[in-house]
Amino acid sequence: MLIDLLNWRYATKKMDPAKSVPAEKVDAIVEAIRLAPTSSGLQPFEVIVVTNPDVRAQIQAAAWNQAQITDGSHLLVLAAWDNYTTDRINMMFDLVNDERGFRNEGWENYRQMLLATYPQRTAEVNYQHAARQAYIGLGVGLVAAAEAEVDATPMEGFDPEKVDQILGLKERGLRSVVLVPLGYRQTDGDWLVNLKKVRRPKAAFVQEVV
Amino acid sequence: MLIDLLNWRYATKKMDPAKSVPAEKVDAIVEAIRLAPTSSGLQPFEVIVVTNPDVRAQIQAAAWNQAQITDGSHLLVLAAWDNYTTDRINMMFDLVNDERGFRNEGWENYRQMLLATYPQRTAEVNYQHAARQAYIGLGVGLVAAAEAEVDATPMEGFDPEKVDQILGLKERGLRSVVLVPLGYRQTDGDWLVNLKKVRRPKAAFVQEVV
Repeated sequence: MLIDLLNWRYATKKMDPAKSVPAEKVDAIVEAIRLAPTSSGLQPFEVIVVTNPDVRAQIQAAAWNQAQITDGSHLLVLAAWDNYTTDRINMMFDLVNDERGFRNEGWENYRQMLLATYPQRTAEVNYQHAARQAYIGLGVGLVAAAEAEVDATPMEGFDPEKVDQILGLKERGLRSVVLVPLGYRQTDGDWLVNLKKVRRPKAAFVQEVV
Repeated sequence: MLIDLLNWRYATKKMDPAKSVPAEKVDAIVEAIRLAPTSSGLQPFEVIVVTNPDVRAQIQAAAWNQAQITDGSHLLVLAAWDNYTTDRINMMFDLVNDERGFRNEGWENYRQMLLATYPQRTAEVNYQHAARQAYIGLGVGLVAAAEAEVDATPMEGFDPEKVDQILGLKERGLRSVVLVPLGYRQTDGDWLVNLKKVRRPKAAFVQEVV
């Protein structure tokens, strides 16, 4: 059950450097992120899976030296498109047509509407919109990790420009949005593992308009 | 399996106005969103559950008249904090201390770091950050809906200022981020239901740095 997965997971503070996440589990997590819904189906982000220890050490140095980046076995970097361009929009609409084997008039009208709107906005507005979509993938990916009994620690505390430089993202029109080390909790070194998960009570989180 | 849920779900275009989602299923979806992780655990958003038909009709008029808003039985509105204030940050840190029954020095230092940082940023920067957290909740909520076999259609196409006004969100320091009608697909009126779900192939979505 999803509720059980959400209660099981937590932002692991100490990962066991001796344990490695099997490749098939990483693949399942990435596949869930790939299947996550996004606005207009544009999927305006990519996932970088970093296992290289040197590269992870460089990223760690740009991320407040958070230990999970190197104690875990894999680092996911969700990187959003730096802009919505005509080419990118057409790429996704063409892919949809190719996969479905036909052109749908309503879908083509929708393409034209996006083409008349998104590329005219500033790159920053478009990037912010794309980054939000990456956060849908983040939510889905964290559920996927829990289902695979893999610990995952989402991190916003890093210097995105440095991470972009380390991974060569700028040249590819991408901007790093969030880091997610994957690994296995080392409970004896983790101050958070035994503390209660705290959320606002329903009454302070949900409002009903009946 | 999560992958099956992600393949089952789609952005339902036509919902059956004769079918209503049971309250316990709506509760399960909202509970999953409540348990979703957020940056620093601040949960900087709320969920408005709208069943009132008149209110939904008003929101529909501010959302390109998308039919699912009134054909579905429930409308979730994810609304992010319009800013991070000292009060809001302290509220969440105090709640954590109350629930855990003790004060942790590291946690208190972290509170001070946030208090010295977030309230000094512009409201717009803080709102954008809060809105991203709501998108984690969106990702988790869409999985929760699929698990409950409930159809859900995330919508960004609406006038947020109008929706804020209809729901009185501004007075509560909230800004509407995304709409999610809940209901049941009416397959004979839904152009999308039988079309293939299209995502970029893994090779165009994932990069490995080994």
